[in-house]
This record gives sequence, C-alpha cells and structure tokens, in this order.
Amino acid sequence: MTTGSGRGRPAPTPYPHRAPFPTRWQDNDQYGHVNNAVYYEAMDTTINAWLLRAGLDPLGGDRIAVCVASSCEFREPSSFPDPWEVGLRAGAVGTTSVTWELGILRPGADDALATGRFVHVWVDRGTRRPVPVPDGIRAAIERDLLT
Amino acid sequence: MTTGSGRGRPAPTPYPHRAPFPTRWQDNDQYGHVNNAVYYEAMDTTINAWLLRAGLDPLGGDRIAVCVASSCEFREPSSFPDPWEVGLRAGAVGTTSVTWELGILRPGADDALATGRFVHVWVDRGTRRPVPVPDGIRAAIERDLLT
Amino acid sequence: MTTGSGRGRPAPTPYPHRAPFPTRWQDNDQYGHVNNAVYYEAMDTTINAWLLRAGLDPLGGDRIAVCVASSCEFREPSSFPDPWEVGLRAGAVGTTSVTWELGILRPGADDALATGRFVHVWVDRGTRRPVPVPDGIRAAIERDLLT
Amino acid sequence: MTTGSGRGRPAPTPYPHRAPFPTRWQDNDQYGHVNNAVYYEAMDTTINAWLLRAGLDPLGGDRIAVCVASSCEFREPSSFPDPWEVGLRAGAVGTTSVTWELGILRPGADDALATGRFVHVWVDRGTRRPVPVPDGIRAAIERDLLT
Repeated sequence: MTTGSGRGRPAPTPYPHRAPFPTRWQDNDQYGHVNNAVYYEAMDTTINAWLLRAGLDPLGGDRIAVCVASSCEFREPSSFPDPWEVGLRAGAVGTTSVTWELGILRPGADDALATGRFVHVWVDRGTRRPVPVPDGIRAAIERDLLT
Repeated sequence: MTTGSGRGRPAPTPYPHRAPFPTRWQDNDQYGHVNNAVYYEAMDTTINAWLLRAGLDPLGGDRIAVCVASSCEFREPSSFPDPWEVGLRAGAVGTTSVTWELGILRPGADDALATGRFVHVWVDRGTRRPVPVPDGIRAAIERDLLT
Repeated sequence: MTTGSGRGRPAPTPYPHRAPFPTRWQDNDQYGHVNNAVYYEAMDTTINAWLLRAGLDPLGGDRIAVCVASSCEFREPSSFPDPWEVGLRAGAVGTTSVTWELGILRPGADDALATGRFVHVWVDRGTRRPVPVPDGIRAAIERDLLT
Repeated sequence: MTTGSGRGRPAPTPYPHRAPFPTRWQDNDQYGHVNNAVYYEAMDTTINAWLLRAGLDPLGGDRIAVCVASSCEFREPSSFPDPWEVGLRAGAVGTTSVTWELGILRPGADDALATGRFVHVWVDRGTRRPVPVPDGIRAAIERDLLT
C-alpha cells in the first residue's frame, strides 16, 4: 500500500505453485475490504492443501506441522467478490522447520496484493518436541517449491 | 514455540490495556487447537474496540486506519474453551502510522501464549493517501497505551 | 442424516445456478469436518455473488437485502479440501421478500450434502422498513432462478 | 425483524442457561452488522461449552454429537462491539437426538435479537450410526436445561 511508484522496484519473484482462493461475502469487513485475518486463512489453506497432496496426514500421522510465526504486508485492498490466487514457494528449509513464502495475487498476475510468511516446525504429536521434517515432504518441497 | 527454559528471559513487558477475548468452538482447527488466523482476529478486535472507545468512527469519519503489516509469534497452543485476554500497548507512533504491540494472554497472567504486531496507517477515505493520525487518537494513545 | 436407502426418494430438483465454493483449512472443526456455520457462509456468498451480478449495489443503494431467517439440513459430512458447488434457485418470491433455496453439492453431482434456505426482505437503508424487491432483481430472479 | 407491533406477543420463555458471547470486529459484514453465520457460531459455541462442562469429550469419546439441522430467525440487527448473551434450553429430547433452543440476547435482557434451533444426533464415531444420548448428558439436560 502506498509504497511508492514502483520505480526501481525489483521484478516480482515467481511462485512455482499457485492455487485459486475465491473470496467470500463474509470476508469483507465493514470498510468493504477483505479483512486482514482472511489473508492468513488463504495462506494457511494453500500450504495445507499442498501438504495434503504431498502426503501429510493431518489426523493420523505422528508428526504434525505447527505454525510458530507468521507475518504479512498488505499492499492493495481487495473486496469480495474478487477472485484470488495464492502463490507459494519455500524459503529457508531447515532440519525441523520450513519457512513458506506466499503472495496473494490477482488471477494470472504477478504483482502481489499482499506478501506473507509462515514458519512451520514439525513436532511429535504426543511430546510436542521438534522432529525432522518428514523425508517425503522435504523431497516434495525441494522438487516443487524451490526457486 | 516451546523455545527454551526461560533462563535469562527478560521479564514480560506489561500491557497497559487488557481486554477479554473468549474463544469459540469454531476457532479450533482439526488438530484441536485455536487456528493461527484467530490470533489476528483477537488482535484486530482489541485494537478496534479500543479505537472505538477513543473516538474512531469506522463508518462516518473521513480518515480510516488501514492495516499495512501484521505479524505474530506463537509460543504455546491453546484450545477452546480457553478464555483469553489480549494485552495492548503502543510501540512506535509516527506522523501517519501507529505500531501496536499485543499479547495473547491467559486471564490474569503475564506470560504470553503469543505476541504480535499490527501497523496501521491512517488514510483519507476517498484518496487513500496517508494523513496524520487524528489528534484525539494520538492523545489517547499517549495517555493510555505508552509504557 | 444418512437417513434411508434412497428407495422412493424423489429425484433431486435441479438448481438453475451453480457456483464453485472451495473449502478452507479453517472450515474444519476439531472433528475434522466442515463446521455447520460454514454452510451458511457458502449459501450467503452464493446469493450475494449472484445479486451483485444482477445489479445489487451492497454499499451505494438505498435498498438493502436483510436476512430474516435461514435454515439448513445436513445430510453427509464433508471435509477440507473437498471442493463444493452451491446450487441456487428461487422459492417463494413475494412483494418485499425472496426465499432462496440452496444445495451444497459435490462438483457435478445432484445429490446434496446439505440443503438450506435463506429468506431476504428488502428494506430501506435508512428507515429499515420493508420496500418492494427492486425491479431489476425481480426480473433477473424470474428469468434465471425459477424452476 | 420488523415483524409486527408486539401486540399479543407471548412473554419470552426464559432460558435456564445463559453465557456471554462478545462480538468481534470481523463479525460485522460490509453493511456494518453482524453477519448471519455468526449467530450459528454463537449457538454452536454455547451448546458445545455447555456439553464440555456436562462431560462430553469431543475428541476422545466414542460417541459424538452431529448437527443434522439448524435454523434461525433474525429480529433485530446488531453490530460489533455489542456484547451478546446466548440463552440455552432443551426442546425435544429423544432417544438419540436433542433439539436445543437458543436466543441471542442483550446482556440482562429477555427480548431476543434472534432465536434459533440446533438438532444434534449422537452417533458412533466409527460407524456414524445413531446411538443413544449418553446418560450423563441426558441427566444434565434434564436437570439444567428443561423449562
């Protein structure tokens, strides 16, 4: 938002994965814009849908991914019924954690309405202590989400 | 998350304003914990309720507060029906923007389940260009939310 | 719920309008199923998106549609990331009110996971007294949503 | 809403259980009123909080309560930051199902902003077939929620 004219602005980094995320009537707050918390729902949904396809079992597995930090910068307002796409790439991939980088995008466009981050740590479901990122998920990230 | 023993951890900074924020059944995700996006709803609600009491008119005024960035670190999971309190203080107060610092707290406790930030920029409702923080809000922040 | 074998069950009535409604991670409650309130978000979103296309101006107009009653019967559970379609048709169309009939559907299927109703009354934005359904909306309903 | 003058309207039936339910900023839709789906969140939260106190274990038990139908009539609009109370009583209590009757109330008042119903059927978590309402829950309902 309000961040200048774009002069000298670096080219947007592409997102290797993009998924549609339609807005809902209830997403608009009383200013008529999608509420900021909805951007986190969009990012969370996109990461979890990708993880499910990569083999994460959110209910049956013994390791679960826990969000330890998230953040978002909002550049342009948006309103229902705007359709969104969410772009996803992996940032840092550590032993027990992954930093996801995301963009809230207009369909087919690269300029982001908002950009954000989620940091997930994998923990043992019972003890809640950090455990290594499961091999299958690490392999899928390295294959599909690095830029 | 679960980060460390607390040895050498600085004393939690107190929040001059605290407000209750009960959790809802629907806040729990399928892991049985309050979803990360709900923490942003809690922070947004607390800021806006405080602003309303300080004289912000979200619909009638010519200046509105727009969220340009937010972030949160999650330290401990929590589940409905846990009651929450949200602590609020002002961080940086600039000409056109305010950084709010918040804690998601157990009632009566100072250790935060999560800590977060919202950056609001005041803009003209019509032109969407930054305008000074309204005097009444600035005065209320300086009186009630600085530490 | 899961009631009966389908023997003698009448053929599902077709919905003249269908729209996709993807589920979100946060829609699942801690049983791992989409929470019942989300079905109302899906119905509300579908009605409002259709109204916007039919010319309703939710913010600028002098007549607004207010929900005075809603209901839903839930037949089968569903879970994120199931994609949904929402089917829409008009039931009773009165002088000042419309009853919408909706089905939560699997994409391309006619059997409903859930069926519901919304009753909207048009009111003057200022006085909140009932006013006639706007002509353009009535015409669009009669053209597109009657069965 | 707007339904009649109140002449001859029966006295509101009291709710033996009442619980606070504060509204949230994000509950307001772009008309500036609490969205209709939030009323269902309020009713669901109140029922589940009461059930938890009555001994329901939403994750560990072998019988879970599934919502098979719900409905709501909306009488007066309400806006964040209005505080709500939700009133709860039991309507029909059958072998495998309970009909809950609820009111969305102003704190300390008996006139309802909205009234609604939830029908819960208890099912075996594995087979999803109806099972009797657990004895402890039935006893608590009969003791605390009948009028």
